[in-house]
Amino acid sequence: MSGSATHIVDELAVLSAEPLCAQAPLTAFDTWVTPTSRFFIRNHFAIPDLDVAVWRVNIEGQVERPLSLGYEDLKRLPSKELVCLLECAGNSRTTAIPPVEGLLWEHGGVGTARWKGVPLHLVLEQASPKASAREVLFEGVDRGTEPGQSEPSSYSMSVSLEKALHPDTLLALEMNGEPLPRVHGYPVRVIIPGWYGMASVKWLSRIQVIDHAFQGHFRVHSYVFIREGDEFHTAKEPVTSMLVKSLITWPSRGQVVPVGEHVVRGVAWSGRAPVAKVEVSTCEVSSELEGTTWHSATLLEPTSTYAWQRWESLCQAARPGYYVVRARATDAQGNTQPAQAEWNFRGVGINSIHAVPLEVRPTQ
Amino acid sequence: MSGSATHIVDELAVLSAEPLCAQAPLTAFDTWVTPTSRFFIRNHFAIPDLDVAVWRVNIEGQVERPLSLGYEDLKRLPSKELVCLLECAGNSRTTAIPPVEGLLWEHGGVGTARWKGVPLHLVLEQASPKASAREVLFEGVDRGTEPGQSEPSSYSMSVSLEKALHPDTLLALEMNGEPLPRVHGYPVRVIIPGWYGMASVKWLSRIQVIDHAFQGHFRVHSYVFIREGDEFHTAKEPVTSMLVKSLITWPSRGQVVPVGEHVVRGVAWSGRAPVAKVEVSTCEVSSELEGTTWHSATLLEPTSTYAWQRWESLCQAARPGYYVVRARATDAQGNTQPAQAEWNFRGVGINSIHAVPLEVRPTQ
Repeated sequence: MSGSATHIVDELAVLSAEPLCAQAPLTAFDTWVTPTSRFFIRNHFAIPDLDVAVWRVNIEGQVERPLSLGYEDLKRLPSKELVCLLECAGNSRTTAIPPVEGLLWEHGGVGTARWKGVPLHLVLEQASPKASAREVLFEGVDRGTEPGQSEPSSYSMSVSLEKALHPDTLLALEMNGEPLPRVHGYPVRVIIPGWYGMASVKWLSRIQVIDHAFQGHFRVHSYVFIREGDEFHTAKEPVTSMLVKSLITWPSRGQVVPVGEHVVRGVAWSGRAPVAKVEVSTCEVSSELEGTTWHSATLLEPTSTYAWQRWESLCQAARPGYYVVRARATDAQGNTQPAQAEWNFRGVGINSIHAVPLEVRPTQ
Repeated sequence: MSGSATHIVDELAVLSAEPLCAQAPLTAFDTWVTPTSRFFIRNHFAIPDLDVAVWRVNIEGQVERPLSLGYEDLKRLPSKELVCLLECAGNSRTTAIPPVEGLLWEHGGVGTARWKGVPLHLVLEQASPKASAREVLFEGVDRGTEPGQSEPSSYSMSVSLEKALHPDTLLALEMNGEPLPRVHGYPVRVIIPGWYGMASVKWLSRIQVIDHAFQGHFRVHSYVFIREGDEFHTAKEPVTSMLVKSLITWPSRGQVVPVGEHVVRGVAWSGRAPVAKVEVSTCEVSSELEGTTWHSATLLEPTSTYAWQRWESLCQAARPGYYVVRARATDAQGNTQPAQAEWNFRGVGINSIHAVPLEVRPTQ
């Protein structure tokens, strides 16, 4: 790990040194925009070190006019800024039972940043996709061989042509008002709002418009739901938009607090629709372990389509005891969090209700 | 963290830097005796740096003849060597649902070592416990204030007089043929065979024979089962002997293997009776996620009362697919592992059946 990489993970917990993957503590989620130093890192291979003077992105495949754009070309195009959350598809994987394959993210593989860049549709429209265009494939400079792969490949992921042309899909050059840090994809990464982070390809080198469903390793083997009943050779459901989810940022797991009123805080999001409500339950271990009484939390300003929704709820801890606090989000489509997310082999899209044990001590 | 502490955790994963706590990978459990460098570390406070020239242990309280022994005194007493497993009471805490309080041990808080030292009963008999003696309290030099404690205290834990007088309870001076390393309690630690590690007090400074049940922080708050239905002020069941448990050491979580026969390996133990049998199930995700067909594994030599029992089982992966391999141990008292251990607030004594996801690829 280079000195700069070590520096950047100071406020994160490293899950893997090579490739560098690191998660944030839940306390990092108490602001609407996550500081870059507390934004999770998920790499598949070694971090490329690119020279913007020579870097280019090629737009090719099923297009009438293939393009090649440099960093300065992109800076001259119209840009847009979005406050947008990214969540790793494997976030909260530790809560899957029985255990699943993959990096053991606790809950820290999520963050909200201010991304600024060129709307992808401007570039695609310039290249003019042919009528045969079906998906847009993003290829990063990062390259290697994953377990189960027979030969090296670049990190690549596709989205539908429709998603690629959405006015909020960006080629991002800035994160939180600064040029993208190297670990976050410098010079340019894709931002696919509402989808799990695997589609927001970093260190972008190629945009290929294709006339078929991409069948690369990361698309058909890694980022898929392999559920009970699924055979080895059958097609699996691809991981795309984020499932509705909430996390409690206060109290922390096992926190000791005095008897009295406490404000439970957290964040909630869905890649499918705005968050409609968040409910909180506070159960005493002495009576009932399952949350049965849910109280609506207050949704806080500001709000934005792609950011997380901060919320808070006043809870009474009337007597000393051991409690479990839970939060459950529901989005405007009516999607709500399950007590336990449906098991899948790779532990992707785990959105079980977050529960936090809390110890309430007598006041001295 | 001092240089030596950093060095000693090279082969371990650090869960907490201060106090230093570190766990072993499951691959470290493939030998009968665990190398010291791969033996888990669980501290509550900073590691003391003791000078054996001045170190003494005092035996006092409800005894006829209080004693004070130095390191050389102990070396002159008869000694005994035991191959004995220690498991942290919080081991496998990550598998508790809903989440629990405490350090997030995956499965690496266990290890088997060769301990050599003075049988404690020789020392206690010399001190001659009074008729009122009920428990023996061990006090370490390590000291501090835990969350929820109002003032600092030394790490202390008690055992019954009967357990203290057992011929295999040791004041250990050596681990795997060398003087105890500093992180493992140099110069002297207690070894309480069959009990969770919290009773094997390190950096021993005092042995107090008491006429009551010890009510210290670690005994009544930390190392207790706080179960559904338990009130804050009622007495909780103390953590003592280890529950029956097994861990799969091969395959590892998410391993990719070719179609064919594979030897599943692991270890099993119980603090209550010898391991009577270990059963293994290999389920394909395509048909059934719950293990229903259990096959007896072969128990391997050597065996010893307090060490783990190594085992292996030939499993058929007849076709490509996604599998879950499980291992379930049963001891000679008939205790067997549950699919999911009963939830408790501190996540102690978690002995749920270990499950490992496995991907079986076609042979090329």
